[in-house]
Amino acid sequence: MGDPGGVGPEVVVAALADPRVQESVEPLVLGDRRVFELAAALRGVPAPGRSLREVFSLSDRPTLREMGAAALAYVDAGIDAVLAGEARALCTAPLSKHRVSLAAPGFQGHTEHLAARTGARVAMMMAGPRLRVVLATNHLALSEVPHQLTTEQLGFVVQLTARTLRERFGIESPRIAVCGLNPHAGDGGLFGDEEARLITPAIEEARRAGVLVFGPLAADGLFPRAVLGACDAVVALYHDQGLIPAKLLDFRETVNVTLGLPFARTSPDHGTADDIAGKGVADAEPMVSALLLAARLGKG
Amino acid sequence: MGDPGGVGPEVVVAALADPRVQESVEPLVLGDRRVFELAAALRGVPAPGRSLREVFSLSDRPTLREMGAAALAYVDAGIDAVLAGEARALCTAPLSKHRVSLAAPGFQGHTEHLAARTGARVAMMMAGPRLRVVLATNHLALSEVPHQLTTEQLGFVVQLTARTLRERFGIESPRIAVCGLNPHAGDGGLFGDEEARLITPAIEEARRAGVLVFGPLAADGLFPRAVLGACDAVVALYHDQGLIPAKLLDFRETVNVTLGLPFARTSPDHGTADDIAGKGVADAEPMVSALLLAARLGKG
Repeated sequence: MGDPGGVGPEVVVAALADPRVQESVEPLVLGDRRVFELAAALRGVPAPGRSLREVFSLSDRPTLREMGAAALAYVDAGIDAVLAGEARALCTAPLSKHRVSLAAPGFQGHTEHLAARTGARVAMMMAGPRLRVVLATNHLALSEVPHQLTTEQLGFVVQLTARTLRERFGIESPRIAVCGLNPHAGDGGLFGDEEARLITPAIEEARRAGVLVFGPLAADGLFPRAVLGACDAVVALYHDQGLIPAKLLDFRETVNVTLGLPFARTSPDHGTADDIAGKGVADAEPMVSALLLAARLGKG
Repeated sequence: MGDPGGVGPEVVVAALADPRVQESVEPLVLGDRRVFELAAALRGVPAPGRSLREVFSLSDRPTLREMGAAALAYVDAGIDAVLAGEARALCTAPLSKHRVSLAAPGFQGHTEHLAARTGARVAMMMAGPRLRVVLATNHLALSEVPHQLTTEQLGFVVQLTARTLRERFGIESPRIAVCGLNPHAGDGGLFGDEEARLITPAIEEARRAGVLVFGPLAADGLFPRAVLGACDAVVALYHDQGLIPAKLLDFRETVNVTLGLPFARTSPDHGTADDIAGKGVADAEPMVSALLLAARLGKG
């Protein structure tokens, strides 16, 4: 359900009423019945019926802290359900890091929480209809990227991407392209040496492990070719390098996927959007995309 | 004409035969008549007639060095022509930095040469139908960007962008958005301090100078909004941040524009493409776009 103060409840009920979702998804909905009933009335769709499991029942006037505690309880119930085999995939609605951290100090976000609860080493993919991008580093100051990016981490992400594409996306021989760090991928060492020093060794190691991987390639030239089908996923080396193209193309259909977990996990790539929550105008298409992809990946 | 060994001659003749170009552009073509006649026969279009000025006549079997010398001579003749008032704008066809540098050691590229010949301080814009991006830094190792980006340089680029949009693009009150350097534009200082330390002061200074400018904004969120019309240009802080979105959208219609010169200068955003030169298959649309924009900017 996500945070009750955000758009989560209304996009969930709207997405569950979508014929594409009804055809492909057998939902187990984790949340609060009263919140869902209000959201369903707001959107003019049915509230979840037998598919609903009441997990954390909110008080009449929940505090921000209570909303955060509830959002976290829904995620935890979702993790429990997939780990117990009751569900084949987890799709999370948006929560507010700030509100969850009021209830659970130190909370850093969905992805970090999922990794901690499962002991998994994870990476983030943005999966859209024309482009899949995986990040080798994420929430780091740009000045830290050249220092914190390691051959080991990049090799891990390339191999995790290949494995996930094979095992969950059903791509038998996935082709992975790796961006360069510097303009023109360093132009033969003219701008920076990370391509030769860090990136190429990771690519060679992944190749020896049997992965079809190429690069490092100039990122500005690579993305247009990736969109035309030159590869099955691009590994970007830092946040903006990967998320600028991912969000520019097909924003509504681009889904956040966590790689490396013992189960499939997706999420729409938007936040709680408190400013429009409860107005009935939040676009449910990102949640539809996230649910459809969860169903597809959960079959893997 | 560009480098005779590249696709320049054939895309120039093809573009000049395009009805849209014929309607808007009165050309002065600088190059070699024989090369243009071969290119015209290859593309099945007329060779330039009275519009041609023979500048550097190539030998029958030109060396790479001679090709480079010729390409540079065409650019220099173009600069002379606009500076002398014979032409209102300069549109350059691709050259090979390598081949020019065989004839002119130390040659770094069109843009640097134009700046040196005119004594101008310049910046590069990529101008497409949906997005204009200007780079605050360009061919720098990523690790150097946080060190070489200064408030002074960013302020210069923002103000140059505003002036060019007003004076050449005819936008009376241009709105300019500036990217953050770090993920989520630093998320309030959580990842990097350059937003507060370097970027905001440049924005405030430009604002005091009367520029409608906002930012720093998370780059991955900014570009989709820029495409929807939220601003007239985005100032990106480094090469890939600006060129990834610019090349992903409308690649064929996106034109390289040099800001800061005493005349309008455009260029298609591709190289000599030696592998397909002389085959008659090179796409002339980028050159059409560059010529049309040169004509428009030259009126300013």
